[in-house]
Amino acid sequence: MDLSKLKPIKHIKIKKGMKANELVKAMKEIGFNAKYLGQAADILEIAVKDKDCMVFLGFAGALVPGGMKEIIIDMLEKEYVNVFVTTGANLTHDLIEALGFHHYQGSAHVDDAELNKEKIDRIYNVFMKDEVYEATEDFFVTNFDSLIKKKNVKEFLWELGRLLPGRSILKTCYEKKIPIFCPAITDSGIGLMVWSSLLREEHKNKKVYLNEFDDLADICDIVWHPKKRAVLYLGGGTPKNFIQQALQFVKGADYGVQITTDRADPGGSSGAPLQEGISWGKMLPKARYVTVNCDATIALPLLFAALKDRIKK
Amino acid sequence: MDLSKLKPIKHIKIKKGMKANELVKAMKEIGFNAKYLGQAADILEIAVKDKDCMVFLGFAGALVPGGMKEIIIDMLEKEYVNVFVTTGANLTHDLIEALGFHHYQGSAHVDDAELNKEKIDRIYNVFMKDEVYEATEDFFVTNFDSLIKKKNVKEFLWELGRLLPGRSILKTCYEKKIPIFCPAITDSGIGLMVWSSLLREEHKNKKVYLNEFDDLADICDIVWHPKKRAVLYLGGGTPKNFIQQALQFVKGADYGVQITTDRADPGGSSGAPLQEGISWGKMLPKARYVTVNCDATIALPLLFAALKDRIKK
Amino acid sequence: MDLSKLKPIKHIKIKKGMKANELVKAMKEIGFNAKYLGQAADILEIAVKDKDCMVFLGFAGALVPGGMKEIIIDMLEKEYVNVFVTTGANLTHDLIEALGFHHYQGSAHVDDAELNKEKIDRIYNVFMKDEVYEATEDFFVTNFDSLIKKKNVKEFLWELGRLLPGRSILKTCYEKKIPIFCPAITDSGIGLMVWSSLLREEHKNKKVYLNEFDDLADICDIVWHPKKRAVLYLGGGTPKNFIQQALQFVKGADYGVQITTDRADPGGSSGAPLQEGISWGKMLPKARYVTVNCDATIALPLLFAALKDRIKK
Amino acid sequence: MDLSKLKPIKHIKIKKGMKANELVKAMKEIGFNAKYLGQAADILEIAVKDKDCMVFLGFAGALVPGGMKEIIIDMLEKEYVNVFVTTGANLTHDLIEALGFHHYQGSAHVDDAELNKEKIDRIYNVFMKDEVYEATEDFFVTNFDSLIKKKNVKEFLWELGRLLPGRSILKTCYEKKIPIFCPAITDSGIGLMVWSSLLREEHKNKKVYLNEFDDLADICDIVWHPKKRAVLYLGGGTPKNFIQQALQFVKGADYGVQITTDRADPGGSSGAPLQEGISWGKMLPKARYVTVNCDATIALPLLFAALKDRIKK
Repeated sequence: MDLSKLKPIKHIKIKKGMKANELVKAMKEIGFNAKYLGQAADILEIAVKDKDCMVFLGFAGALVPGGMKEIIIDMLEKEYVNVFVTTGANLTHDLIEALGFHHYQGSAHVDDAELNKEKIDRIYNVFMKDEVYEATEDFFVTNFDSLIKKKNVKEFLWELGRLLPGRSILKTCYEKKIPIFCPAITDSGIGLMVWSSLLREEHKNKKVYLNEFDDLADICDIVWHPKKRAVLYLGGGTPKNFIQQALQFVKGADYGVQITTDRADPGGSSGAPLQEGISWGKMLPKARYVTVNCDATIALPLLFAALKDRIKK
Repeated sequence: MDLSKLKPIKHIKIKKGMKANELVKAMKEIGFNAKYLGQAADILEIAVKDKDCMVFLGFAGALVPGGMKEIIIDMLEKEYVNVFVTTGANLTHDLIEALGFHHYQGSAHVDDAELNKEKIDRIYNVFMKDEVYEATEDFFVTNFDSLIKKKNVKEFLWELGRLLPGRSILKTCYEKKIPIFCPAITDSGIGLMVWSSLLREEHKNKKVYLNEFDDLADICDIVWHPKKRAVLYLGGGTPKNFIQQALQFVKGADYGVQITTDRADPGGSSGAPLQEGISWGKMLPKARYVTVNCDATIALPLLFAALKDRIKK
Repeated sequence: MDLSKLKPIKHIKIKKGMKANELVKAMKEIGFNAKYLGQAADILEIAVKDKDCMVFLGFAGALVPGGMKEIIIDMLEKEYVNVFVTTGANLTHDLIEALGFHHYQGSAHVDDAELNKEKIDRIYNVFMKDEVYEATEDFFVTNFDSLIKKKNVKEFLWELGRLLPGRSILKTCYEKKIPIFCPAITDSGIGLMVWSSLLREEHKNKKVYLNEFDDLADICDIVWHPKKRAVLYLGGGTPKNFIQQALQFVKGADYGVQITTDRADPGGSSGAPLQEGISWGKMLPKARYVTVNCDATIALPLLFAALKDRIKK
Repeated sequence: MDLSKLKPIKHIKIKKGMKANELVKAMKEIGFNAKYLGQAADILEIAVKDKDCMVFLGFAGALVPGGMKEIIIDMLEKEYVNVFVTTGANLTHDLIEALGFHHYQGSAHVDDAELNKEKIDRIYNVFMKDEVYEATEDFFVTNFDSLIKKKNVKEFLWELGRLLPGRSILKTCYEKKIPIFCPAITDSGIGLMVWSSLLREEHKNKKVYLNEFDDLADICDIVWHPKKRAVLYLGGGTPKNFIQQALQFVKGADYGVQITTDRADPGGSSGAPLQEGISWGKMLPKARYVTVNCDATIALPLLFAALKDRIKK
């Protein structure tokens, strides 16, 4: 950092009717996490506009129940993102909505024992009715043979997307043939529904075999194709790690944005700043990257609103 | 909470050219902290529009160096806020800029020993040149007699505002006669400069006496005047507590928004959610309030952009 | 809570030579997270002493590199814990040490590009030499046929434990026949090493098939056996979720302790307090549980030191 | 950091009857925040044993209600600490207990409106009965003339300590003549009680004048006396800043330990790591220092138990 050429903080001025993109641009000229958010938009703008750059989205947390589904679908449809890695939980919630159910605006200040009696599941201040599991189980039982023919998780998830009636992340990945990975599919409602379908009389001698090493081989192959790679991590968990371990084979990503609220100092991957990835070869030493400490339900809509204004897609 | 009348999560859809206010409105219909930010805008909109409601702003943290100065000035000028309580640090940084100096866009990943050699002070990723202290000290030495005549901190700060050449929070409070409180003025650069002025030959037998009990009496009187009270706490610290202790005499505020990144569980006031204030009589039991966990440099510009679109001022 | 029978805070008094267990006992009588840590020790004491209670440990984060390995081995050997669920990363780090390599006391304030040149991988303030991967890969290539015969992840991990030369979590689970689950084994160095072994000439037509649905069936069966269940979650991630989803079939755990530094409000499972699990049927409404916000490298040694003093095992 | 001479992580082994000091020593050889806690004990041990070193304690947060009072008294009595800076809130809680009242073991999961009805004030999971204010007010009214004669806050607080019947931080500071600073005394229950005493018939024409610039001059003088300075910051707030601004005149402290749970990235002083202070001249570039991210109710008892075993006082 050249200390002789410092740029002044330009205090944000708010205008009536100000666009989200204008706000994000202004944030780049101030301090603390707003600056990082402003930088994140610039980095993603470059990455998404660059035809030589493949963008990997690691999507953890409970961001589908939290209200981010349409943004993700939009990012996938418009090819802001080329490879999608997520948790089984997010896909289960996506599937639930595709089957016509909802998540609800709830409260974090409630009696969980009462919710339990009312068969309502709580995800912080979001609610879900427990009844969704019956309908989703029916869906799995009905479509079981078609689903279990698939050889790996990616194809299983694409098949899920094909079968789903409603607009969803899963269907979008299927239709756009966007590689979708879920390194812990058995650790989710979807996993449980496959397992419980196997307990039914009509399916009981069948075998499900989704070869996750095949998915691993797949992503390790995919990282080699483009000239450049960008990562966008929303939260950490298995999605971040699964992308990062593949990137090590190409010495790391060229661009990176991470949005997390976890601390770095307890050592977990979800809170580790992107900079740490340079030591491992998960980010290139010359990479442009930034870690934003912010709830993704606030940061992602802002970021994506900025990007949509900047990118013709 | 009526569990039979739950409203579904409405996933945010981003449009090209989306306004910040539209984004904030959409956030209210989703989950996690975005929901709280959306609610915060609604609560402040009601409070600011209500002529019977006095709005108290508690402004802690390093938000002037962080880039929030113009938003605060705008809020004061347009009377979104009627009483202003802050730290000595924020006022010192405001004064520094009013005298023509800057804060700079820096980095958190630097060698602090090198910065020390280069006489640059770091506030996370914001820099300030140490040289500012000389000029500010000159300002105090020159204006000393006028400043020390004042009987309490509020009048001292108004006088500072009157004397300052440039646009600033201090000048705005002076010009608009907005009560301004700083419960720990000696704990700041301004405090140090008053003290060091006293060491100069020309001032050495003078006495400075700012009666802080007078300020305390002042705010305890102010809270009685309006029919309703609203609070906006950016961070916690002494500004939050100073407002809260006065509000206890009227059984608490009617409206409240708190933006903080501190945790509640270690027990400090800065992380305590507004709800806790109900037990103390700092918030009314029937109050509308929300605590948003977000860096204020991201949340405040969003909130204020939403408010400016909604409020004709 | 009976407000008429409140117990006073008993301020902690420190004696010379004070035992960790005495400290933890004293913490129970004060406030904030210390109180929770004190309660956690009592809850685990009851659970571990109760022969009718099965204890599930969910072990996420980078706690093997962080220095918790011997505590975990001790907990497994002495049967404080009966079922073990963890991440592939922790098992990879355990394997690396079992093969004679080390993790190192490093620093978080370093140039990651320089570490990258020196082939040192950083996990916050812990280092690991990149060279470990060669030796661990050799181990996999050599033992490949024996490993890939296994039908599910649990048996694969037991076989790993059997083959390892050194003291390790893996070996201990194997020797004690403690069910060990890793819901995302492909998302780890172990996963990568299996995959890369398949690329070798000598293994290239072989097939690896670890049926993770088999593991899922296994844990869903295990939860039915005991009269009571206790959970200890260190961090969140897949280990917590994998245990929780199985517990739903028995309406939830009787006892629970969670140690995490993640926030609840962004909605992720890792920061969700145990209380939230009651709505889902992951914790019983009448369960005794507590969530402690503390770095596990501080909280776990304290907790286990307290338990070892209290439990004859 | 010499990368060729790295020391291995020594996994903590727990023995039956393990002393807190042994645990803290073992923590120094592992990673994450445990390592920092281990280092903190070493740094404080050196500082406290060094007769040329003056130790400044900045004591923020609600640590008296939280249960840390006896540790602080012990540290003051045994001269582990030579200068004490705190918030008005902590002193108010100390005074309340000295007058025979208690804080109570409460809960964070309660109905604050009900607490309000029952006249119970909540500080996260600690309760206090509102009735304490009446008795404390009586104390102030009775002792008013003696208190208001004092010229600055330090002497006022010493006089408070002299007058108090019970064991307390205030009395200990008085008896040991330990300089005690409170840069925002009007921002506290003590401040309110002085102010309300002035409203009584018997005191109504009296004047209270505590010259806080006198306290500022006092601490700015004190920092010059010793050859070395150490700081221990529990939380941040005004106590940390008040010490830091004085230390700038001697180019910074030689030793430093900070215990906080606040994040650095939102830019506030409470979360700023000690390292940042080097740029300002608040810590010496060559200083030995460490920042521990941990709830002080857990970290401080551990630290002090370690110190008591190591230091003959």
